[in-house]
This record gives sequence, C-alpha cells and structure tokens, in this order.
Amino acid sequence: MTKRVYNFYAGPATLPLQVLKKAQEQLLDFDNTGISLMEISHRSKQYDLVHKEASNLVRQLMGISNEYKIMWLQGGASSQFWMVPLNLKIEGKPMDYVNTGTWSKKAIKEAKYYGKVNVVASSEDKNFSYIPNNIIFSDDASYAHITGNNTIYGTEYHEWPNTSPDVPLVCDMSSNIMDKKIEANRFGIIYAGAQKNIGPAGVTLVIVREDLLDRVDENTPTMQKWKTHADKDSLFNTPPTWAIYICKLSLEYLKSIGGVSAIEKINRDKANILYDIIDKSDGFYKGHAKKDSRSLMNITFRLPTEELEQKCVSDAIDQGLIGLKGHRSVGGMRASIYNAMSKEGVKKLANFLIEFKEKNQ
Amino acid sequence: MTKRVYNFYAGPATLPLQVLKKAQEQLLDFDNTGISLMEISHRSKQYDLVHKEASNLVRQLMGISNEYKIMWLQGGASSQFWMVPLNLKIEGKPMDYVNTGTWSKKAIKEAKYYGKVNVVASSEDKNFSYIPNNIIFSDDASYAHITGNNTIYGTEYHEWPNTSPDVPLVCDMSSNIMDKKIEANRFGIIYAGAQKNIGPAGVTLVIVREDLLDRVDENTPTMQKWKTHADKDSLFNTPPTWAIYICKLSLEYLKSIGGVSAIEKINRDKANILYDIIDKSDGFYKGHAKKDSRSLMNITFRLPTEELEQKCVSDAIDQGLIGLKGHRSVGGMRASIYNAMSKEGVKKLANFLIEFKEKNQ
Repeated sequence: MTKRVYNFYAGPATLPLQVLKKAQEQLLDFDNTGISLMEISHRSKQYDLVHKEASNLVRQLMGISNEYKIMWLQGGASSQFWMVPLNLKIEGKPMDYVNTGTWSKKAIKEAKYYGKVNVVASSEDKNFSYIPNNIIFSDDASYAHITGNNTIYGTEYHEWPNTSPDVPLVCDMSSNIMDKKIEANRFGIIYAGAQKNIGPAGVTLVIVREDLLDRVDENTPTMQKWKTHADKDSLFNTPPTWAIYICKLSLEYLKSIGGVSAIEKINRDKANILYDIIDKSDGFYKGHAKKDSRSLMNITFRLPTEELEQKCVSDAIDQGLIGLKGHRSVGGMRASIYNAMSKEGVKKLANFLIEFKEKNQ
Repeated sequence: MTKRVYNFYAGPATLPLQVLKKAQEQLLDFDNTGISLMEISHRSKQYDLVHKEASNLVRQLMGISNEYKIMWLQGGASSQFWMVPLNLKIEGKPMDYVNTGTWSKKAIKEAKYYGKVNVVASSEDKNFSYIPNNIIFSDDASYAHITGNNTIYGTEYHEWPNTSPDVPLVCDMSSNIMDKKIEANRFGIIYAGAQKNIGPAGVTLVIVREDLLDRVDENTPTMQKWKTHADKDSLFNTPPTWAIYICKLSLEYLKSIGGVSAIEKINRDKANILYDIIDKSDGFYKGHAKKDSRSLMNITFRLPTEELEQKCVSDAIDQGLIGLKGHRSVGGMRASIYNAMSKEGVKKLANFLIEFKEKNQ
C-alpha cells in the first residue's frame, strides 16, 4: 500500500500523482513495445513521438511561435550559465545582468569568464527580499539576463523589464516556468531546469529565438553550440529520454486541467492561502519577501525563534508535510508549491500552520 | 500482462528485468519516503545513500583504487569529447588519438578545437573492421585517447596499448564498460555514457585519476571543469537522480550475479554462440570485424543480399527479437548483446538465425 506524503521540496520536487502512476504502469512495457521507455532507441519511431510531443506541448502551453526553437538539453540551468554568454555574447558589447539572489550571482560569475558584465540592478542590499523596480538595461548590451523566480528568497518577477529591440531578454525560469501566463515573444531565450515545475532532474528546457542561434563563433566545440542541438531537434546525441518522457506526461497533465491559465489561477489561490496566514499571524510568521515581489512558487518565512522553526519543520514531518526547512541563506521555512502541488496539500499545510501558531505562540 | 521482447538495440539498450521491476515497485514510494525517487531532494539523506552506493559499486566492481574519483555527469560521451581536451591538454604537447570508427572521429574532431591532434593509428583503410596492432603513442603527448569498443563496427580492444608513464591513457568505454575485467590503474581516465551497459540515457560515468584534475586552466567556467564535480562528489548542481538510481540498481544486480568476472564469462559465451553461427554458415552470414578484433558487445554481420538482410530483420521482429538492423556505415545486421542481454535471448536469436539460413539460403 502506498502512503504518499505532501512534498514541499524546492527541487527535485513533487510530480502529479497521475504522471507517476502512468510511468509506473508503462515501466516494463512502453506503448506495447514490450520494452521499457528507458530501453528504447532514441532513433525509434516510438520514442520520436514522445520527443516531438513534449516539444509541441511546450509550444502550445506557453504560446511559443515558430520563430523559436525548443530544445531539451543536459547539464541543468548551471550549464546554461556558461552556454548563454558563449552563444550570445557579441564582441565589444557588455552582458547585462540583474542580481536577485544566489542563482543570479552564479549566472553572473560564469558570464564573467566570457567578457564584461554589467550588473544593472541588485537587491542584495536587503538580502534579496525584493525584485528591483525600473530596471534599465543598456542599449548596447549583448543581452539582458534576469532570474524569473528566486527559489531561495521567495521572490518573483510579476512584470518583465523592457529591453531595446536589439537586446534579447534572457530569463532563467527554472523555478517558475509555466506558473503563469507570459508573453513569450518578449524573450530571446527562456531556460529552465525541469526538476521544479515540469519534470524530473536531468533535463533542461531551452527555448531560443531562431535568429540568435547564429551569433556563436563557428570555431566552438559542437556540443557547446545551441545551434547544433536546435538543428537536430535535440537528437544530435542521445537525449535523456526518460526525463523527457516524464516532462511530456507532466505537460499532458497540465494541458488536461486547462493549461497555463488554469494553473495560474490555482497557483494564485495556493499562494494566497499561505501568504494570508503569514499576514494575519500578528507577526508570528514573518514573510521574507516584500509583498509586491512575492513568489507564487516558494513561500519563505521565519518564526519568532530558531527553536520554534526547528520544531515547526519537525512537527510538520509528523503530519506528512515534508521538505519545509528554509535555505540557510534566509533561514526559517520555505514551502515550495510548484504546479504539481495540489490545493489539498497547501490547505493541509495551512491548517497545520494555524494550529502550530495556536499551540506555540 | 507484460509481453517483453528481446531487445538488441545498440543503445539506449536492454536493462535487467529485475532492475525494471524494482524501479516499478518503488516508483510511487521510494524507500518508504512516501514520494518517488524522482521527487526527492538531491540533498536528502535518502538520495545521498543512492548516490554514494552507485559510486561505491563502480569502485568495487571495477577494482578502482582511491587515487581515482568517480563522477556522474550529464551530456553523454559527446560532452566528454570536449571535456577531455579542455581538462587534460598541456600547452605545447599534442593530443594522441587512435581512430577506430565513427565515435573516435567525433572525439578527434572536438579535440582539434583545443590544439594539435596526432592520429597515431587508424583502421579506416578497411572500414574500421579491426583494432590496429602495435599502437605507439608519443612520449610527449598530453594524453593518449582510444575508443574501447566500436558499437557501429563491432570491434573491441582485447589488449590495451601502452603509454609512457607521463602520458595518461584515456578510454571511451561507453559500449563496453564492465563487459570484462580490466586493470583500471592502466588508465588515467575512463568515461562511459550509461545507456548501453550500466543504465539509462542521461548520465555519464567518468573515472579520473586524481592528479589529473589539476591540469585544467583555472580560468575555465565552473561546470566545464571535472575538478568542480570531483570536489563536490557530483553534487555541485542537481545530478540526474533517476538515471543514477537506475545505474545503482543495475550495478547491484551485476554484483549479485558475481560481478565483472562472472559477466565476462557470460559475455564470452554469448558472443561465441553468435560468432560460431557466423563462422559455420558457409559464408551465408559474413562477420564485419576481423576475428582478433571482434567485440563481445556488438556482433556485426552481413547476409548475401540487402533483400535478405531486410527480411531477416523483419522476420526477427515477428519472433520478438528487435533492434537488429545494422548501422548504415556497415549495413546488414547488428546484435547488441550488452551485460543485460540474457543468454536465453542470445540463444533465441541463434536459433532464429539458424532457421533463417535453412529457409533462405
């Protein structure tokens, strides 16, 4: 008998139960092939259908036009931190970055290996508790890079900054891809490690506007160029077939419940339930993020003492609510409530937090 | 009811049925955590045990000493084609390669982006049907690179070439890792995409002698350096947790049946069954590889006509024997009989080939 718990890990993170059940059902015999999806050639007709459908679902769900290529790469967002400057940098033009936390800093560090970086805005002065307003990117930048959601600090862009027409906006959406409707054509590049909002660890979704693929120096090793993967539909070498298959199942599920606008509504409801508890707790729960920068995906908050924080995390585990310990950079607690976290899970956490406060304040 | 077929794909390839069953059993609830392995944090205690055990099993099964680091990376052997020269090249010293087929050529192509490459031996003159004898690497090479087994052509090294003490031997063992006992300390680096002999697509095993980790230029992006991953035990960023878990299950299974010496015996038996049929077929089946270079893993052969080859592949499918079409570079047929292919599967194929010849010669 399976006893499932509610999983608030920041990533790898919870997946829809329907997706896991389907994967389990087909594990020994994928689509009547008599073998597992893990065992099938990436050049087979059967795998090809999975691969193409995963990309089509991204296109449909996010409203991505044909000017963009969809790629499934390996190495995580951490590999995009160097692939972005390597593929996009224009000689003599700086690379503009906004620093909204740990992952922005890592992206900035890697870009510096490739040339001059301008940090045009930062929220480091207040421990990354907000998204800077009125961000101005330079007109002569190679590109402008932002981190769409800051998993550790619990902040998220709710309006996208502008760039001049020649400066593509690049966004790391690892922890908020498909959490809400976006105008995809505002971006030059969107990338996201799958393991938070759309699948398991081991695959990174990269969406690139086609004209940007030609910027890379031709004298670059083959695997390092986005163009290689875009031209071969991510089949230049063996892709991480199982991870792409799970993404496909998870995107199918998202489509079946109404797509990104439906999940956005659910996500706003889920986040509101928890932020309400914080706001109405008379200071017992103290949110880290400034209200206008609050993330829909990661709710970060502190309790009056570290002892209470530890007790809260451990009492929660006893109630089947796991993964709630905050990152050491913020401390306290963090509830990661990605697309696959159900409203029931959030309500159960909400009730737990109300009771915990009553017993411990 | 699961109807399993025998899968002779070159990779992704067949996995032990016991491994798939275990993965299926635990898919919704890994190790009584109440969540799937795909959903668990890579920083959790439960995942850490899986991760460490996978590395320990590699060490035990291959007899790897503590002078070596074991890493689980992403991007396939194709990414090692550039990571090897980037991490190992010494300024002013050429890189020596042996060209034994398609994958060697790809490795050579990528090394050329980093400096001077010497191809010290090649079997291209006879469509890569043999492994060159008496390979002499230069004494002043940065390193010496070979491809342990050539999946497409069905050739394999049965003796390892010598290098001088300062020249590390680097081997791509993607298609023959753990197919037979080796003296691991003869190598500086061993790397292998997992999807042929030890697991699913999406993870690459890289074994590096520790002193070689310091060769890399410090001014190299973090993710591109082996040292980054070695120092953090492949947990610098989120690893492909599911793929590593399946490798761990598959290595556990290998250990349970007696380890590499046991599987070597089975592999030799399996290969002999098929090579015997080729040799005793009065020329109906014609092996591609020279006898002393024959692979234990990929048996490549032709039939008298292309029509017969097509018929043979398609009649085999009707018998539940799939994935036997040869690569276009050789034509004909290829039976990939990696560690996870059972002797029963090979015997069934053998009987089929005997009958096919009787009916069609």
